[in-house]
Amino acid sequence: MEPRSRAVFIVSDHTGLTAEAVARSLLAHFEGVRFEYLTRPFTDTEAEVQAVVEEITARYRGGGERPILFSTLTNPGLLARLETAPALFFDLFTPYLSVLEAELGQPTTPRVGRYHSIGDVSAYFTRIDAVDFALTTDDGVGEKHYQLADVILIGVSRAGKTPTCLFLGLQYGVRASNYPLAEDDFERQELPEPLKPHRGKIFGLTIDPARLHQIRTQRRPGSSYAALERCEYEVRRAEQLFRANGIRFFDTTAASIEEIATTIVQTAHLTRRIG
Amino acid sequence: MEPRSRAVFIVSDHTGLTAEAVARSLLAHFEGVRFEYLTRPFTDTEAEVQAVVEEITARYRGGGERPILFSTLTNPGLLARLETAPALFFDLFTPYLSVLEAELGQPTTPRVGRYHSIGDVSAYFTRIDAVDFALTTDDGVGEKHYQLADVILIGVSRAGKTPTCLFLGLQYGVRASNYPLAEDDFERQELPEPLKPHRGKIFGLTIDPARLHQIRTQRRPGSSYAALERCEYEVRRAEQLFRANGIRFFDTTAASIEEIATTIVQTAHLTRRIG
Repeated sequence: MEPRSRAVFIVSDHTGLTAEAVARSLLAHFEGVRFEYLTRPFTDTEAEVQAVVEEITARYRGGGERPILFSTLTNPGLLARLETAPALFFDLFTPYLSVLEAELGQPTTPRVGRYHSIGDVSAYFTRIDAVDFALTTDDGVGEKHYQLADVILIGVSRAGKTPTCLFLGLQYGVRASNYPLAEDDFERQELPEPLKPHRGKIFGLTIDPARLHQIRTQRRPGSSYAALERCEYEVRRAEQLFRANGIRFFDTTAASIEEIATTIVQTAHLTRRIG
Repeated sequence: MEPRSRAVFIVSDHTGLTAEAVARSLLAHFEGVRFEYLTRPFTDTEAEVQAVVEEITARYRGGGERPILFSTLTNPGLLARLETAPALFFDLFTPYLSVLEAELGQPTTPRVGRYHSIGDVSAYFTRIDAVDFALTTDDGVGEKHYQLADVILIGVSRAGKTPTCLFLGLQYGVRASNYPLAEDDFERQELPEPLKPHRGKIFGLTIDPARLHQIRTQRRPGSSYAALERCEYEVRRAEQLFRANGIRFFDTTAASIEEIATTIVQTAHLTRRIG
């Protein structure tokens, strides 16, 4: 019989995204255990905390091992109530906050209201502008804006350029454009004309041809676009073009969008524009 | 004299995004202190850790208070070396991992290589598909795909629809479309025709008119599009339309993209498709 998955509750008075990322990172170290993530964001009243406690209790009584509970609550009353839940309890924030209070020589400032990330309006604009920029200069369009780009990603179709550009905008406020390499470029082995003045900003993405074949097949099954030979040809010629033109490039095959984006920021020494 | 900002080093053998989010969340509780975030991702060799130790030492010797150091390293040798840095040291992972080893009755699995988030290939496809879906059905286009959408955001231009849809795709693998309300809709006070069959999936975004005016002015200064009276009219009519048609809606004025997206997932009971 398949073992029941272990319940992991994540309780936050805000979005819970950070707490969930911590929980997932930690639990990824335990192979073979199945976890069920139950995130409860915006939990900031006694009644809401009590509802979560009851949910955890019901889950535990329903059988199986005790749930695991991660919390980023900081209100002492809410925390005390949450700790009554029958769970392995991780208080992710308050132990660190005590140490930081001593180090910084000031108490924490109570945060009021559910929505407080927006803070700095100029950071908001920077971020939205970066997303707009990625959309305006996606897939080879909007080349007249390239002088404003922080980075221009090039590579074969479906190497991961567009999601990476969007993530760079959302996470870092970095203005990222992308340009797909095509048949002409593979033959000429030169940078496309619109890119030539911006060589220093260009970053190549490559991918394993078998993986590319799998991705393109998902999109257009049986097409010549998805054929393995075509994928092998395009990747080989794209990498030759990168090398011939001194373009740094990165293999996205085994990497997530976060990993690709972070590698580009690090390698190209991009400056984070927000945060 | 302006006090020097406190250096905050974030050291990870992976992207460092989670560790940085934790550090920023914690330090946001200390108003008035300026922090300088120095994230060092993919730090997974003795030499790289040593380089960070030297960087921290140099920073401390350069004057000011000791840096704050957050680490998600789990390799004992690397951790021991990092702890020699002259900093307030927070080991974010290994204390929790010890507790989890005892609870789960198994040791952690050492993770090899820098790139390991991709894991499940089907999750990768789901995520990329969700981003593609948001792009294909952005700003009122691609209505023939609406039956595949998990949620359709509607609202006035610049209420935050597009970045929220992209974030929903990247973070949750949720398929989100968006449709801008326009003059005709404001007058008729009815849902646009393409949306009528999908009423149950619709979620409205609204915004404070003065804020909308500020955002639109940034984009098209002095235009009638950005005029305060126009913004007031559009927001009033959009909210009337939401109410008249029983559409749930949310005010994005004070919310970040993460907060808007999390609220929508929670309120509309959307199912996360990844993770």
